[in-house]
Amino acid sequence: MTSSLDPDIAGRLKRDANGLVAAVVQDADTRAVLMVGWMDDEALHRTLTTRAATFWSRSRAEYWVKGQTSGHMLVVREVRLDCDGDTLLVTATPAGPTCHTGATTCFDADRLL
Amino acid sequence: MTSSLDPDIAGRLKRDANGLVAAVVQDADTRAVLMVGWMDDEALHRTLTTRAATFWSRSRAEYWVKGQTSGHMLVVREVRLDCDGDTLLVTATPAGPTCHTGATTCFDADRLL
Repeated sequence: MTSSLDPDIAGRLKRDANGLVAAVVQDADTRAVLMVGWMDDEALHRTLTTRAATFWSRSRAEYWVKGQTSGHMLVVREVRLDCDGDTLLVTATPAGPTCHTGATTCFDADRLL
Repeated sequence: MTSSLDPDIAGRLKRDANGLVAAVVQDADTRAVLMVGWMDDEALHRTLTTRAATFWSRSRAEYWVKGQTSGHMLVVREVRLDCDGDTLLVTATPAGPTCHTGATTCFDADRLL
């Protein structure tokens, strides 16, 4: 779909074959890495303009405002693009546990090392 | 290629169409998000067993030990898999600036919000 994303920003994105970039969300206060989602241009545009972290769901093929159903939104404080343009770092304040399991982060349950 | 990755771990990974998962690297001390790279089973196996963060370079199509040329390795302290199995969180101690530009992190230069 056509997006209203600032063309200066759009020109710096290196999207994957599906038009997406990875978005890492970090807690503004605790600095914990909360989750990783995917954004296309429109999801990034909505995130920047509404400050509600918004992703593209690859499994459901739809936009998804984090916390839309749970209430546990991610209020966005800062967004940065990495040096090769394919990953965003979103700094946010979570309104509750981020993981759908109820855990604070999506990385709490499965430690490999 | 065939990997020696622990089959219990391999069974929990949800790889993309190219057989990769995203790997977010966070500084063990400062908690800064340093970079995001990509790992296949073998890169993860090497990361877990050598504790030197090792990625699959999509552009060069080869394994890549971070710091192999610069000396700025990422010494791995902890590795976690997220709730849906498609992203790793690698906690590491960097031996120098992580970004190839000489910046501390790959997210230092381009702030969108």
